[in-house]
Amino acid sequence: MASPISDDKKVRRRMQVLSLHLGANKVSPMSLIGSNICLSGEESELPEEDPVFNDRSNALFRMVAGKHRSIHEPILYYFRQHPELVNPVEMLKDEHRELTMRQLEAIVWEIGLRPLTLLSQDPAKYFALTEAVGHVDLSLGIKLGVQYSLWGGSVINLGTQKHRDKYFEHIENLEYRGCFAMTELHHGSNVQALQTTATFDKETDEFVINTPNEGATKWWIGNAAVHGQFATVFARLILPSSGSAGDTDMGVHAFIVPIRSLQTHAPLPGVEIRDCGFKVGLNGVDNGALRFHHVRIPRDNLLNRFGDVSKDGVYSSPLPTLNKRFAATLGELVGGRVGLAAGSVGVLKAAATIAIRYSLLRQQFGPPNKPEISILDYQSQQCRLLPMLASTYAFHFATDYLVDRYVEMKKTLDDEVIADVHALSAGLKAYVTAYTAKSLSICREACGGHGYAAVNRFGSLRNDHDIFQTFEGDNTVLLQQVSADLLKQFKKKFEGRALTVTWNYLRDSMGTYLSQTNPVVTHRDGEGHLRDPNFQLDAFRYRTARLLQTAAFRLRKLTKQHGSFEAWNLCLNHLLTLAESHIETVILEKFIHAVNRCDDKTAKSRLKLLCDLYALDRIWQDIGTYRNQDYVAPNKAKAIQRLVEHLCHEVRLVAKELVDAFGIPDFILRAPIGLKSRQYSEYSHIVGF
Amino acid sequence: MASPISDDKKVRRRMQVLSLHLGANKVSPMSLIGSNICLSGEESELPEEDPVFNDRSNALFRMVAGKHRSIHEPILYYFRQHPELVNPVEMLKDEHRELTMRQLEAIVWEIGLRPLTLLSQDPAKYFALTEAVGHVDLSLGIKLGVQYSLWGGSVINLGTQKHRDKYFEHIENLEYRGCFAMTELHHGSNVQALQTTATFDKETDEFVINTPNEGATKWWIGNAAVHGQFATVFARLILPSSGSAGDTDMGVHAFIVPIRSLQTHAPLPGVEIRDCGFKVGLNGVDNGALRFHHVRIPRDNLLNRFGDVSKDGVYSSPLPTLNKRFAATLGELVGGRVGLAAGSVGVLKAAATIAIRYSLLRQQFGPPNKPEISILDYQSQQCRLLPMLASTYAFHFATDYLVDRYVEMKKTLDDEVIADVHALSAGLKAYVTAYTAKSLSICREACGGHGYAAVNRFGSLRNDHDIFQTFEGDNTVLLQQVSADLLKQFKKKFEGRALTVTWNYLRDSMGTYLSQTNPVVTHRDGEGHLRDPNFQLDAFRYRTARLLQTAAFRLRKLTKQHGSFEAWNLCLNHLLTLAESHIETVILEKFIHAVNRCDDKTAKSRLKLLCDLYALDRIWQDIGTYRNQDYVAPNKAKAIQRLVEHLCHEVRLVAKELVDAFGIPDFILRAPIGLKSRQYSEYSHIVGF
Repeated sequence: MASPISDDKKVRRRMQVLSLHLGANKVSPMSLIGSNICLSGEESELPEEDPVFNDRSNALFRMVAGKHRSIHEPILYYFRQHPELVNPVEMLKDEHRELTMRQLEAIVWEIGLRPLTLLSQDPAKYFALTEAVGHVDLSLGIKLGVQYSLWGGSVINLGTQKHRDKYFEHIENLEYRGCFAMTELHHGSNVQALQTTATFDKETDEFVINTPNEGATKWWIGNAAVHGQFATVFARLILPSSGSAGDTDMGVHAFIVPIRSLQTHAPLPGVEIRDCGFKVGLNGVDNGALRFHHVRIPRDNLLNRFGDVSKDGVYSSPLPTLNKRFAATLGELVGGRVGLAAGSVGVLKAAATIAIRYSLLRQQFGPPNKPEISILDYQSQQCRLLPMLASTYAFHFATDYLVDRYVEMKKTLDDEVIADVHALSAGLKAYVTAYTAKSLSICREACGGHGYAAVNRFGSLRNDHDIFQTFEGDNTVLLQQVSADLLKQFKKKFEGRALTVTWNYLRDSMGTYLSQTNPVVTHRDGEGHLRDPNFQLDAFRYRTARLLQTAAFRLRKLTKQHGSFEAWNLCLNHLLTLAESHIETVILEKFIHAVNRCDDKTAKSRLKLLCDLYALDRIWQDIGTYRNQDYVAPNKAKAIQRLVEHLCHEVRLVAKELVDAFGIPDFILRAPIGLKSRQYSEYSHIVGF
Repeated sequence: MASPISDDKKVRRRMQVLSLHLGANKVSPMSLIGSNICLSGEESELPEEDPVFNDRSNALFRMVAGKHRSIHEPILYYFRQHPELVNPVEMLKDEHRELTMRQLEAIVWEIGLRPLTLLSQDPAKYFALTEAVGHVDLSLGIKLGVQYSLWGGSVINLGTQKHRDKYFEHIENLEYRGCFAMTELHHGSNVQALQTTATFDKETDEFVINTPNEGATKWWIGNAAVHGQFATVFARLILPSSGSAGDTDMGVHAFIVPIRSLQTHAPLPGVEIRDCGFKVGLNGVDNGALRFHHVRIPRDNLLNRFGDVSKDGVYSSPLPTLNKRFAATLGELVGGRVGLAAGSVGVLKAAATIAIRYSLLRQQFGPPNKPEISILDYQSQQCRLLPMLASTYAFHFATDYLVDRYVEMKKTLDDEVIADVHALSAGLKAYVTAYTAKSLSICREACGGHGYAAVNRFGSLRNDHDIFQTFEGDNTVLLQQVSADLLKQFKKKFEGRALTVTWNYLRDSMGTYLSQTNPVVTHRDGEGHLRDPNFQLDAFRYRTARLLQTAAFRLRKLTKQHGSFEAWNLCLNHLLTLAESHIETVILEKFIHAVNRCDDKTAKSRLKLLCDLYALDRIWQDIGTYRNQDYVAPNKAKAIQRLVEHLCHEVRLVAKELVDAFGIPDFILRAPIGLKSRQYSEYSHIVGF
């Protein structure tokens, strides 16, 4: 463990860094550091003409990469100036863990960012920070998330003012490094079945934290193996009875438990720590296992926002039931999913950039007696990569919307917004991370042998990103939450109650979508019709409405026969498809909205092209469903397939510009085959020599 | 570089090893070593009651894992006795490279296998060897493939008797370690465009090997970075004109080029060697780059089976044209694809075993007030993993057939068999490796957090296997070869000529498949009909026949407008789908055949269940196509979907037995969550502590 460097040294380093990247400009370095950075307006004060961000004049760049330049640029510049802090291609787990910790310290101590302040005051900037550090290394993004979103977030969101007073600043400046100890060896998704106990001892005014069996060991806990000094431990709150009645289990609550000495860094008495070892990826994060042997903590360490215990052992809560308290506790963790969805789009942007630039560069085969052609000129390569590019844009706008809704939720605390953000964040996290995971493999394959060189990053991106599908809620479980919410909304609709914003289309148009399809429309196959956003949205909404209605009917029928648990299981594939269909609909709506609000003519035409490709490719991928309901006639299905191929060809012509707009600078992207500034003539250098 | 250990030591080690795993049994150790192993019959002489292979009494095990026990068992036993030679979970590239070399030496020097002899005399056993060493570590499988299949195989298949006399024994015993230097920096798939030259110098009776530019650098060459002493170099054979005419380019030929000194192991003069560095996977194989600066080799080093140059510089060949010589040269490399397809199925078996065993073990959620249920009891988990299990069996029988056809080809040298094996090996390699690659990700996801522990092997299996999709022919390119062959067969059919065996169904029934579908059959949706192999095969053949006919028509039309190159490109997606559809048809045929020939009642019913699941899941996955042609009516489509879910449920009941039949012993499988012998109560040990 390194101790924080001295203040003097910190300031000196900051000034060095800033003078390097600001050069002779008249911008005040102080406007870029400390809280000035975090809380400044949208516009960065870095010079417009800076060659690294020279796409600023491009309207697409401004829309896509421009929004959070004030957060991104100081971080990216810092790592350009400190190549010794950038991850080498090959390293052992232990080296990686130390480097990641150094990187995080640099962000806080040297660049002077205040992530916990951002998280609580300006979450959109916090998520932008997550994306930027993810471009440096995904382990850094997760290490930051563990310290601030999980450890810090649990303290400030599940605790009360006394906890904020005591912990906030220490967490912010990395003096208190912490863990989020929820998952156990035997229980990940089923949080309500956690077995660790926190028994109140009135005599000493303490809770006793205990691991009753091997299966209750806290497992996969980030920051636990090496760096953590505290943990937010999720445990069943047990109140011993005063009389002859048994103990009372109040359900899962969160407690702050010190795990290592702040002085010696040794594990504290009763705390057994093991190392979860080498993982498929994210080896910069030190996951560990924790067992508690009757560890005593003060009563004040209960994070008591949703439930408290008095000195006399009396339980109180602003919420009436155990289930509501449980939902409120987990509900506060929704920010993690927003961050993962946004971070996953960042990974997809990087991978798409590398794969598409290389596919433009690489030439193989060609017409007889003519030069070889770029592999992106092949229809198969276009249809692998360009719908992916369209999806990247689609996800960018959808997660942007999610972040806005999250910010709104934190401000208003409106119940309807909360419900909406919960389902939307679960659905987008699941959908986007699953899509990105598949895309990373497709990108590697599309780049052939050179895609297999570690230096070109597909391997580490895939390995690191893989677990995004599992942590903060397994995707299969999250999609079921979306379906459950849709079914609740469906019921509300019949009861004439208000729907949450994101599902509004169901109220407006469910009837329309489920009436007989119009045979004329079913056969229309002209390009104008197929590229009409009304047709596209209708098709998406029709599918969701139909899946929802049939799911509700099947569930009702099967529940009578088999009970609700088994009925749900018998409809599980159906329910997962429903959730995906709904999320795709939301994504399309937000994309169409982004096209409409774009006021630059060229940028708008590019976005429209991508949006059409996104919509029609999705319809084509699920053409069986549309044909099965005769929503599209065979001639129309064929026309959609041909138009997708044609739109891919159109996108190919502007593909370079479209990936440039993601604005990931070469020194952060690093993959030699994917750099913007290299030429084909330098190819052997490009592939790593 | 270690030098071979002394003969005495070798024999001593062998005896130690064998006495350890044979114990007091009366089997002669010598029957298991040296050529006795390689050339013995199907039955291993290891004791029947051995606990490691205790599934011998199971008919499924005998069908699936039993065929090549005589090859598998000595290798697996050896590594059980030598844990120091088994790969640790985390290691650096350089350590991994040395370990892989030691493992290969152990196989040859200590177990006494003779891979090159197997390859040339009993290829089925060679492929079994590849699968077995792949279970130890895929780098070892590839290192073995580089030394024997690529380096050894090129010498014995492209050379003549003089080459076999000079090199065979030295390659066999690892005294001459070699590379296969085909791919160049700028040319992988397009082998005909390679730029390295081999210019004949009549004065000295030598060829001069030269790399004319950076792009012609030999790239990704296995064994080149560290261990290789020779390389089979593919280069354009240039004959200088005797008069004023320019040089004559005779096209690509193969040459044996020494690259390192046999004494000092230093690179030889004019040979520049670089290290291709860290890769996504397979870091036990030392890939390097080679540049040749006018390196001289004797004329005899031309591998002259298909083309020779006399002392006077006169070219001769048994084959009339450059294209035929090129095809014959590449054709000899088909064995590599057979090995990759079989090896890929081995990887799929291991991954499916781990994922399914863990899914039976892991419990999460359950009905109210009842115990939690296995995650394999969830419909979603069943539909992710069990069609994969069915496919694994399907691929097992299909690659087994491919190996038999390959053996037949090597014996008969019949033109029709050669053409058949070429297309079939290209198609199966592409299809199986793509499927396995996707499945490895699905398995990791299905095992959640514990699937992310490196010790559970999904990460390394995925990273190592990934490149199977690219090397020995990029999958996209190989599938096009299948389509090209199908189109050739289609043309033949119209000309009334004989078709190769695998495509026979096209001749027999093309007309039937393309006539109007029978509306009664279209609506039949009873289980008996859907599980009738005739319906299933008809559906697969219909799709292929239809895709083939429409591809031929589209190509003819588009060629007139755009020329053949562009027409092919405009149909590329169509052609890839056609190839996949054909390969799926072949796989189904072979699976049905395996069901029919199984004479054990229980085993037969299991196989029939898996075969139905394979067939109906594939039909459901492509239901859009079937609906588009009204080959199945909506009611039938729905019935297929429900039956797939039901069959998954049925397979779940026997899933344990089905993965046990793959016969991968625990000490080789290694993944703690996937072991056969562990119990749920030992779970914390199971996950790696």
